[in-house]
Amino acid sequence: MNVGLIGLGRMGYNLALNAKDKGHNVVVFNRTLEKVQQAEKEGLIGAYSLEEFVQKLEGRRIIWLMVPAGNSVDEMITKLVPLLNEHDIIIDGGNSNYKDTLRRYAELKGKGIDFVDIGTSGGIEGARNGACTMIGAEDDVFKFIEPFIKDISIENGYLHTGANGSGHFVKMVHNGIEYGMMQAIGEGFEILEKSQFDLNYEKIAKVWNHGSVIRGWLMELSENAFRKDPNLDKIKGVMYSSGEGLWTVQEALDLKVAATVITQSLLMRYRSEQEDTFNGKVVAALRNEFGGHATKKNE
Amino acid sequence: MNVGLIGLGRMGYNLALNAKDKGHNVVVFNRTLEKVQQAEKEGLIGAYSLEEFVQKLEGRRIIWLMVPAGNSVDEMITKLVPLLNEHDIIIDGGNSNYKDTLRRYAELKGKGIDFVDIGTSGGIEGARNGACTMIGAEDDVFKFIEPFIKDISIENGYLHTGANGSGHFVKMVHNGIEYGMMQAIGEGFEILEKSQFDLNYEKIAKVWNHGSVIRGWLMELSENAFRKDPNLDKIKGVMYSSGEGLWTVQEALDLKVAATVITQSLLMRYRSEQEDTFNGKVVAALRNEFGGHATKKNE
Repeated sequence: MNVGLIGLGRMGYNLALNAKDKGHNVVVFNRTLEKVQQAEKEGLIGAYSLEEFVQKLEGRRIIWLMVPAGNSVDEMITKLVPLLNEHDIIIDGGNSNYKDTLRRYAELKGKGIDFVDIGTSGGIEGARNGACTMIGAEDDVFKFIEPFIKDISIENGYLHTGANGSGHFVKMVHNGIEYGMMQAIGEGFEILEKSQFDLNYEKIAKVWNHGSVIRGWLMELSENAFRKDPNLDKIKGVMYSSGEGLWTVQEALDLKVAATVITQSLLMRYRSEQEDTFNGKVVAALRNEFGGHATKKNE
Repeated sequence: MNVGLIGLGRMGYNLALNAKDKGHNVVVFNRTLEKVQQAEKEGLIGAYSLEEFVQKLEGRRIIWLMVPAGNSVDEMITKLVPLLNEHDIIIDGGNSNYKDTLRRYAELKGKGIDFVDIGTSGGIEGARNGACTMIGAEDDVFKFIEPFIKDISIENGYLHTGANGSGHFVKMVHNGIEYGMMQAIGEGFEILEKSQFDLNYEKIAKVWNHGSVIRGWLMELSENAFRKDPNLDKIKGVMYSSGEGLWTVQEALDLKVAATVITQSLLMRYRSEQEDTFNGKVVAALRNEFGGHATKKNE
């Protein structure tokens, strides 16, 4: 199929190569044009303006956006719409908040443009060789793009989750679960590290990946990380986050789900970004006030 | 090798069959003797008393205990020791608390008996076809039993974790991680279930198992569970626990590890066992006292 892809970041670039390898004609556009030149060298069809990009796509257009969540998506849609025909399809393959997706779907519906949300998991390696995709779309739109989606996904790795918005929603919850699983793994290894035993974390991650209940890709990644840096001496324990965990917690609050573990995982990430806390100062001061307990001086 | 196995519960029985399939002569004993008769029909060598059991093992004995953690282990060791020769090996393959293991190791050391702790993961299927085993043992004792351990474990699925006690310790932490991962998965599916979307949990678990970050055995088990009962209508959300999660939390407290997620997972299990809480009554009464807020009548 002829497919357009906008946004040649790590995920977008590798998805484009993946699609090309499966025999698709992939037209690519990117804000910084050097990436387009680079892409052309690898057999992708470059476009140096949105007009050129749209012209190079034939028939009912499929345009995959892989740009950062937020305003970038709205801005790109606003620029694209005047150039498109009725029932051309815009896919948002990024990590957009599903509420934005519902709004965009309604807006584009009014303009005759079909909109699809795809949550994409599996990291860069998945993008390049076969991703896990969760697709929110109207049935007939899904059917039209399915051959392409099947090709870029790993075997059995795509699902039409349901109505528009559900793709991004299911992907958001996936990431929330990921937060909890990762925090549990981190806590477990910290208990091992603080214990009286002299343990090899790489070997433990490896044995856990062979036959144990907690085997899985995250434990394989743990094994890789400990192989490169046996005690993780080279990095700090600062856990950044990029939004999907927060959205999952906000959603849990809206739906009154007692998602204690996912919430704690997010809060522990925030705590890890702080060198010191005002909370700690207040509690230390109060212990001193009522019991004369020692405080630690700020130097 | 000649190996004795005591305790023909689901795990022990399947481990014995697994060892027999790998060409070992497996002598079995069980408190209730019907199980021994059943085992003999499947090619295992039955013993109807501990004396007979010990006599049927030749050379340096390897005796695998697969009895419930706690007093049963101590009682069995007490009965066995007078029947054994120096450097015979007792393996505790159950989910014993590693502190009990350290005590038993010291006691048996004084009596000339070698003691090994093995944490066994992978469930009944693993016991039957290849388990994941974590072994705490002295180096020379481990070397002696290694050919047998290798045979009953899945490929790459055994590890000499280190000194005595470390096998059960690493298995305990494995279970703590399992608690956190399972709670994260549970919370994620509850957010899906409460959402505005009409979702198929089995299909979502399946797609998550193909290429996503959270793929792994627990997600495969989720897929199985939703296949059998799409909305889990047939069961209550009561989450029992059997000790290893509690021990992990106690250890985290002793070591001052802020294991928030593993702890929350345990507390949510306890909460799930309560139909109503006194905590809830107190808070409801206080809201009523200070603000006249409505309470729910107990009928």
